[in-house]
Amino acid sequence: MKIVFVGAGNLATNLCLALNSAGHEVVQVYSRTMDSAHALAQRVGAQATNDVAELATNADIYIIGVTDSALKEVSSLVVSHIETERGTGRMPLIVHTAGSIPMDVIGTDRCGVLYPMQTFSRNRIVEFSNIPIFIEANHEADLNVLQGLSASISTSVRVLSSDDRRYLHLAAVFCSNFVNHCYTLTAEILERKGIDFSAMLPLIDEVAAKVHELAPKDAQTGPARRCDTNVMQAQADLLSYDPRIQEIYRIMSKSIMHD
Amino acid sequence: MKIVFVGAGNLATNLCLALNSAGHEVVQVYSRTMDSAHALAQRVGAQATNDVAELATNADIYIIGVTDSALKEVSSLVVSHIETERGTGRMPLIVHTAGSIPMDVIGTDRCGVLYPMQTFSRNRIVEFSNIPIFIEANHEADLNVLQGLSASISTSVRVLSSDDRRYLHLAAVFCSNFVNHCYTLTAEILERKGIDFSAMLPLIDEVAAKVHELAPKDAQTGPARRCDTNVMQAQADLLSYDPRIQEIYRIMSKSIMHD
Repeated sequence: MKIVFVGAGNLATNLCLALNSAGHEVVQVYSRTMDSAHALAQRVGAQATNDVAELATNADIYIIGVTDSALKEVSSLVVSHIETERGTGRMPLIVHTAGSIPMDVIGTDRCGVLYPMQTFSRNRIVEFSNIPIFIEANHEADLNVLQGLSASISTSVRVLSSDDRRYLHLAAVFCSNFVNHCYTLTAEILERKGIDFSAMLPLIDEVAAKVHELAPKDAQTGPARRCDTNVMQAQADLLSYDPRIQEIYRIMSKSIMHD
Repeated sequence: MKIVFVGAGNLATNLCLALNSAGHEVVQVYSRTMDSAHALAQRVGAQATNDVAELATNADIYIIGVTDSALKEVSSLVVSHIETERGTGRMPLIVHTAGSIPMDVIGTDRCGVLYPMQTFSRNRIVEFSNIPIFIEANHEADLNVLQGLSASISTSVRVLSSDDRRYLHLAAVFCSNFVNHCYTLTAEILERKGIDFSAMLPLIDEVAAKVHELAPKDAQTGPARRCDTNVMQAQADLLSYDPRIQEIYRIMSKSIMHD
């Protein structure tokens, strides 16, 4: 499988390295900036470019891993370029990696999605093997291609429609982005008292570990779970210095009580 | 050190087992119900009781680990009983284990706090050695006792005043109770689409692992972090079936954007 990567951000980098390690040939990496394209391309022995007009047109699959807001425009440029160059020849498979965007944003018949559900950071290389990958394609044969490609890097591959993937991505926002924001608010509260955030790590780890064994609802503890209004009122009062955090405290507590 | 445990709930059970393993002698376990008292007492070779009037009065330290709302009343009963029985003799050290309650709720001069900051569940025995323990006492000598006791089961012991401990406990609510509630909301969203919660575990683990290396604010990702209003509006619309979750989505997203 000859692969072209369009995008060299956190997700694209991690996915590209995993596919390369699994023996797939990454022939080219495109990024808006040549530095980013080079940085990833040299790690997998690929050519680098920052010009869509120079994209290789002989690859089997194009993986577009750019930010959600740029996806439509970049897809359109990639498809136009390949259509122009290939003329009446058969189009390759073009997929994106975004959780919240429907497959048809790509705007060509041989389209698909390969969504690895994980949070990626540039300087953390994550182990792909247990990351669930959710795939979708317009044609059965292409779905088989994505199944094989995904199975070469992950033990958890599942077909999911664009419609259902929107909910999956929304759920991921809650257990990833909102959870991390709770950590941020924790750090802000502790900073005022000169307590280092690292004191919370054993607690954070245990809360995450618990839901491997218990349904989250059954794992819930704390003042709101016990409907302890005295503690809740006292804690809300402690936050009077910041109405934004105080509002989050009240709304989360109310939601726990009513759940 | 002869120890009496007052309370046999999740925290008391875990703490009692850890102290027993470290070689301390638990002489008695009190709980409102005889079943609970027995269940814990027999695991550490202690006597069980459900009657404060039968509390041993010759112990060195009494650890009151009951729910926050019962703490004041139970402390008062324990102190009265020991004062009555000891007469003019020296009072023992009496401590509680609650994060959000001041030390002086105990209502006697030799009082203290031993707060292991962790979430405890009855059927999960947690490894105590890396749980931070926050201690406080009315007298320097008693602080030394609590320091030694805590250091026998944890590598992380720190003195913290009642005033600062309120903020610590509040911070713990954010990174434990509110985080777990985000997991619950995640499960609720997935359930509507028949996707098993276990699909989220690699993501949950990585989000927790990341803040061991990065400050939470630097680890933040997602549509709100990118100020991607299109995705945020579409995701809020998906939640129109449940105004409670929708409100949490909006408020957390707004807070991330403004942070």
